[in-house]
Amino acid sequence: MLLDRAVHYRAMVRAGRVSEALRGVAVCLAFFEDSTRTRVSFVLAAQRLGAIPVMLFAQGSSMSKGETLLDTLRTVVSMKVDLVVVRHRAAGAAAYLARHLDAGVINAGDGTHEHPTQGLLDLLTLRDAWHGRFEGRRIAIVGDLAHSRVARSAMFGLRTLGASVTVAGPATLLPAGIEAFGCEVAPSVEQAMRGADAVMALRIQRERMEQSLIPSTHEYARVWGVNAERVELMKPDAVVMHPGPFNRDVEITSDVVDGPRSVIWRQVENGAAVRCAVLERCAQGRRALTAAEWPEPLSVEVPE
Amino acid sequence: MLLDRAVHYRAMVRAGRVSEALRGVAVCLAFFEDSTRTRVSFVLAAQRLGAIPVMLFAQGSSMSKGETLLDTLRTVVSMKVDLVVVRHRAAGAAAYLARHLDAGVINAGDGTHEHPTQGLLDLLTLRDAWHGRFEGRRIAIVGDLAHSRVARSAMFGLRTLGASVTVAGPATLLPAGIEAFGCEVAPSVEQAMRGADAVMALRIQRERMEQSLIPSTHEYARVWGVNAERVELMKPDAVVMHPGPFNRDVEITSDVVDGPRSVIWRQVENGAAVRCAVLERCAQGRRALTAAEWPEPLSVEVPE
Amino acid sequence: MLLDRAVHYRAMVRAGRVSEALRGVAVCLAFFEDSTRTRVSFVLAAQRLGAIPVMLFAQGSSMSKGETLLDTLRTVVSMKVDLVVVRHRAAGAAAYLARHLDAGVINAGDGTHEHPTQGLLDLLTLRDAWHGRFEGRRIAIVGDLAHSRVARSAMFGLRTLGASVTVAGPATLLPAGIEAFGCEVAPSVEQAMRGADAVMALRIQRERMEQSLIPSTHEYARVWGVNAERVELMKPDAVVMHPGPFNRDVEITSDVVDGPRSVIWRQVENGAAVRCAVLERCAQGRRALTAAEWPEPLSVEVPE
Repeated sequence: MLLDRAVHYRAMVRAGRVSEALRGVAVCLAFFEDSTRTRVSFVLAAQRLGAIPVMLFAQGSSMSKGETLLDTLRTVVSMKVDLVVVRHRAAGAAAYLARHLDAGVINAGDGTHEHPTQGLLDLLTLRDAWHGRFEGRRIAIVGDLAHSRVARSAMFGLRTLGASVTVAGPATLLPAGIEAFGCEVAPSVEQAMRGADAVMALRIQRERMEQSLIPSTHEYARVWGVNAERVELMKPDAVVMHPGPFNRDVEITSDVVDGPRSVIWRQVENGAAVRCAVLERCAQGRRALTAAEWPEPLSVEVPE
Repeated sequence: MLLDRAVHYRAMVRAGRVSEALRGVAVCLAFFEDSTRTRVSFVLAAQRLGAIPVMLFAQGSSMSKGETLLDTLRTVVSMKVDLVVVRHRAAGAAAYLARHLDAGVINAGDGTHEHPTQGLLDLLTLRDAWHGRFEGRRIAIVGDLAHSRVARSAMFGLRTLGASVTVAGPATLLPAGIEAFGCEVAPSVEQAMRGADAVMALRIQRERMEQSLIPSTHEYARVWGVNAERVELMKPDAVVMHPGPFNRDVEITSDVVDGPRSVIWRQVENGAAVRCAVLERCAQGRRALTAAEWPEPLSVEVPE
Repeated sequence: MLLDRAVHYRAMVRAGRVSEALRGVAVCLAFFEDSTRTRVSFVLAAQRLGAIPVMLFAQGSSMSKGETLLDTLRTVVSMKVDLVVVRHRAAGAAAYLARHLDAGVINAGDGTHEHPTQGLLDLLTLRDAWHGRFEGRRIAIVGDLAHSRVARSAMFGLRTLGASVTVAGPATLLPAGIEAFGCEVAPSVEQAMRGADAVMALRIQRERMEQSLIPSTHEYARVWGVNAERVELMKPDAVVMHPGPFNRDVEITSDVVDGPRSVIWRQVENGAAVRCAVLERCAQGRRALTAAEWPEPLSVEVPE
């Protein structure tokens, strides 16, 4: 299983070792949105496994000359690039590329849609915290559910493994019909967190204020922020998560970020391990299969 | 010969293998203009051969502090960088650096002047298409001849190997005296392509419209674009080329790009192979010769 | 000693060899200010030693989303990055990170404060020029002392090894109380350079003119510039240094840069070697010690 393989790689990374598993495999890291943790962890993973990384940004590329995303990446793949890791603001970008490129495509975040490797690292972090059992466990996800690809990917994985999910957030940031994802909606952060086994605070983007979706960061922190008092409402062994980058003292207080319940840095560490496992899995797929037999990509397609 | 060596490397690249041929050789990729295919193929080539790549852009470098191009690269070369791959908007930039740097200098495009590795990949693509014989073959090169370093480098190589070249394009984009390059000028794209063994469509840059050199992209496509009907005027085994990035349905129609005559993606694949061969050749030169015996650089000097 | 180790690496670099000394060690190059020589020499050093480099710039990272410097780097370090090389406009940035990160932190320039690896390469260059003895030797440092982290780091090292330092520059660019650093202040560049064993010209930044700290580049060159005539005032075997990037014919004339006394390119070459030695030393520290026993970082703390 992918998470077990990630645990294997976590040990390798912790020991500062490298492998030759992906020797000769070229990996294009196509990041058309800002990113630190996802980009850096994929770059490190590729190099630790002996692959050949090549960076692609919108700026400085032919896309600034009007070339389409698909033609730019078709060009890169024609140079015998085996794997494409793509982050793009358009929902469905990775799935679209996966249908048209003769390469393994890994979704590193597509708009507000999905962020599957983030979902996997969240699952790995919770599997550790929950001693391997998801059944009977409940997580509260708090904040800007409407714009969070992180929340979507986590909910999808958690529901599949048997955990239940409660969401809470300002009405302006809760998508209509979110219950269809199999989660409960709580009217307040307190009710969402009470008795939970974990809480995931979501990042609030400053532009949401300009769009009048939230009143002010101070107001947001007071009503929806994850703070020490609210953490006490959870089970005694419950953990605090955040996908990062976080706004200290807005959606989560600084003392909680750095406190004993926080597994935020473990999420980052698991991210490095998960990306090793995902690159390996996709490279194996490329080697074993012809393009016609290529299995479902990691990315999930957008319903038309 | 360089093209044979490129064929050797094409097989290596296709097999996803790497070599240690350039182990310990540091290669500076100095790209002062936007580029995807040239930059990425050189980065991949350097890494596949075991070299040490280091990127240099105008932004983020000391050139933003007013340092000259030559001083910046002299600095890099003083750190024992053996090869400098340079793209620069000034015609003659690579030749100038080659005269003053104690390093192998590879021209990756200098203004509207030359793009020698593109020329080599075009030759390799045509050698395959034409089963190794250039004599008696004819290529039509269509479009913005005035600003195309790609066309110049291709014409130079094709004439040397014995093929003939017919050019066609708007009068505003045909340099006066282009016949001196040993090509014929046709009054229309149809007359250029009729009976040809290949056509190379050149990229139209949007800024040419602002300069009133072409009326509109629609008009351009109608009068000078390479489309399916015009492709039928060529010999039955003739191929369609474009250096990329292309404007679909402007200088070339989308169905032709993706059609059976198109060798556009093979050009890209050959580019990756040619750059391996060029890096190897230049590194061998560095190792075998002292600076004084250094042979003519790949780049061609601009007549003063 | 670190300089002896740099000499060892200089031979390795000159021979175009690589090593596996830092195999598996990940190095984050966090450059938040423009840089060519420091950035490129660290990137080359990391790769020559077999380490895994990963670049981090302000642009394109999570810092553009409002994340703090410390949280961004804590994130990177959580992915098992062992060494962080940081350049930042804030004096004390490296020391601050060194106190809070579980990683080796190398100061690659912090504001107007320190630039320790530049100081080391200057010492190595002078040790060669002075045949290994600093006692009884004197260097003139000329120009913008107030904003020069290079001068600070050089002065600190030179005083420690027994050389004496004379400074000279416009009154607006001499910090009050500079004598406390153990140097003498000369009223003119001629008096500073007369009988000296070396001169270090400092870069003049164009913005100093806008701030009215210097009148014009022409005027500056005439009064404070290092030129051939002034070089003749020094001892016959004295050398000319400049940290680069230099403004030809402003703080130093072009003929002096390219003349026989100039060791400017040797400074660059030594920089590449020093950075190998520093990376190796810091990586050894990481491997041998627990975080609690971690020794003093290379960076020097700012007095509060």
